[in-house]
Amino acid sequence: MTGPRLTPLAQSLPATVPFVGPEEQERNRGAAFAARLGANESVFGPSPGAIAAMQAATGEIWMYGDPTSHDLRTALAAHLDVPMPCIMVGEGIDGLLGYLVRLLVGAGDTVVTSDGAYPTFNYHVAGFGGVLHKVPYAQDCEDLPALIAKARDVDAKLIYFANPDNPMGSWTTGAEIEAALTDLPEGCLLLLDEAYAEFAPEEAVPRIDVHDPRVIRMRTFSKGYGMAGARVGYAFGAEPLITAFHKIRNHFGMNRVAQIGALAALQDQAWLAHVRDEVVASRGEITRIAAENGLSALPSATNFVAVDCGRDGDFARAVLAGLVGRGVFVRMPFVAPQDRCIRVSCGRAEDMAAFAAALPEALAEARR
Amino acid sequence: MTGPRLTPLAQSLPATVPFVGPEEQERNRGAAFAARLGANESVFGPSPGAIAAMQAATGEIWMYGDPTSHDLRTALAAHLDVPMPCIMVGEGIDGLLGYLVRLLVGAGDTVVTSDGAYPTFNYHVAGFGGVLHKVPYAQDCEDLPALIAKARDVDAKLIYFANPDNPMGSWTTGAEIEAALTDLPEGCLLLLDEAYAEFAPEEAVPRIDVHDPRVIRMRTFSKGYGMAGARVGYAFGAEPLITAFHKIRNHFGMNRVAQIGALAALQDQAWLAHVRDEVVASRGEITRIAAENGLSALPSATNFVAVDCGRDGDFARAVLAGLVGRGVFVRMPFVAPQDRCIRVSCGRAEDMAAFAAALPEALAEARR
Repeated sequence: MTGPRLTPLAQSLPATVPFVGPEEQERNRGAAFAARLGANESVFGPSPGAIAAMQAATGEIWMYGDPTSHDLRTALAAHLDVPMPCIMVGEGIDGLLGYLVRLLVGAGDTVVTSDGAYPTFNYHVAGFGGVLHKVPYAQDCEDLPALIAKARDVDAKLIYFANPDNPMGSWTTGAEIEAALTDLPEGCLLLLDEAYAEFAPEEAVPRIDVHDPRVIRMRTFSKGYGMAGARVGYAFGAEPLITAFHKIRNHFGMNRVAQIGALAALQDQAWLAHVRDEVVASRGEITRIAAENGLSALPSATNFVAVDCGRDGDFARAVLAGLVGRGVFVRMPFVAPQDRCIRVSCGRAEDMAAFAAALPEALAEARR
Repeated sequence: MTGPRLTPLAQSLPATVPFVGPEEQERNRGAAFAARLGANESVFGPSPGAIAAMQAATGEIWMYGDPTSHDLRTALAAHLDVPMPCIMVGEGIDGLLGYLVRLLVGAGDTVVTSDGAYPTFNYHVAGFGGVLHKVPYAQDCEDLPALIAKARDVDAKLIYFANPDNPMGSWTTGAEIEAALTDLPEGCLLLLDEAYAEFAPEEAVPRIDVHDPRVIRMRTFSKGYGMAGARVGYAFGAEPLITAFHKIRNHFGMNRVAQIGALAALQDQAWLAHVRDEVVASRGEITRIAAENGLSALPSATNFVAVDCGRDGDFARAVLAGLVGRGVFVRMPFVAPQDRCIRVSCGRAEDMAAFAAALPEALAEARR
């Protein structure tokens, strides 16, 4: 009795997963984390109005969500000042990345990203049989001119470019991005992952005509809006590309309460401003704690800070293990030389206190 | 300036969508529906304990869900009495169908389903370039022997078989399904969509060893458990196939509050029994209302009833239009001769009253 006949591509894929979740780490270590600072979630939470709206809507969970996400898209269109048909709402940026890669990338198609950038994007490219070309970071920053040059070399269909960057927190100015567009090869789409845009200085957000067919942008309610567990992201770009998503997406994939919560979150920009203030304060605190321990924190336009541990990847991995072992969930870059850093998400005073308490011990342990 | 280069497959796909949601119909008609009986949602709602659990967990929405759905899978493993690695939790059966088709179906691969069965499955097969072969219903029932014979003829990798069936509400006995397995061609997977299993008589649910590589089964929290808006479904089958899902799925695709709600819903089997009683009563009521209007209702093992309007598809479509125009959201089969019916979901007394009030007028209008 033979088993099912997977496609050759499905057979060839590795069993690796992009990230091990903190819950699994907690189960493995037999204890909960004291501070959850590893996934760039917003421990400050969503708008109280969004929480209230979601709680009030829970009784409606027997109904499917609106497959068009009409109300949320209407509000996003007003917020972004773009036409509604230029907006696609999906199951987080992770889900949207999967759809976009599926639309563009078939077996052997080439794609360009930075070496050390978002692994889930790479996972989707591999999952659809694409060939990934990687460009090194330059001074801990994604190198847009190099990405574009590589795309020209390999005739890439798609460039992944996160701004601000994860995992380093660095950023490119909007003016530089706007200028670089003229160098994009014909038929190459620039995917701007702006998951952290709400934390970035205004100068880091480019002004690009939404109808420009060379670019698609993605943002999320997971970071600034504090709703990672809700799975709501959105893409915006030229209508022909956005329309193509509707040919393949899971039309009934959105959680109804999450749609309602995202709408309420969007409408509470005062809460977002409050979170931004908290994040600025916490970035300062992480920087201070790092300095107290003789480490330097990198500048960040996000809700996390890359802390340079001052040696190589093995040393940073030992520091990270020491933090995790002491109940502080953090992550770190995967690739040298960025893997000399650990990546610490912003948090409340108690989260910072847990980090401050664990770091000296983790460092001492790593140095032994 | 050319646009992005979509894959030839993506370019070739039509812009059609499987279903237009009731919210869009409400916007088009400029008024809300008085009764929402078209999507086989459970208007009886989820367990009050599940609602309470979800409301209590809403404050945690800043955290991503557990990518392994560990707690829910643990509970499902106990509930189904199968090993946990044989269970995959995903974004509703719709999401799981997409993953399964992606694993098995490449360009030109053949798949078999019933003509008039679930359109979203067909959508996914087309979306991955598969070739769909359709077998007619036999006496308003999906015809498993004919599906298997067709699969042998066309060397199908996959058979879709919903039991109980949607949209007709009919069912095949478990014993018949078990017996049919011996006729399955080598390397052909039988996908059992059991979305309505919680409403079915025990004799309609087959006993199949979970390790049997010839079968995968899918169930959902959208129907019996009343959580359609939460997007939680699960598949169970032999471990090698379930493991393959992890190579391609959106690992962080599950809503955290939905995971918690589904767990609480599963633990309240008394509520499920209550809903089952309500559904039995409502099926009786739909049957009575149909008979009062000279129509015959088909037997149903689901939370909806197909009502035979007694003429052809054009007539049933006119009846449906009359109901929708009077604020009663219902749907109907797409294919003759099943499209002589309308499909009415079970509901509360007030929903049934709205249906009972609208049906005579809709019929009179359709007959003119």
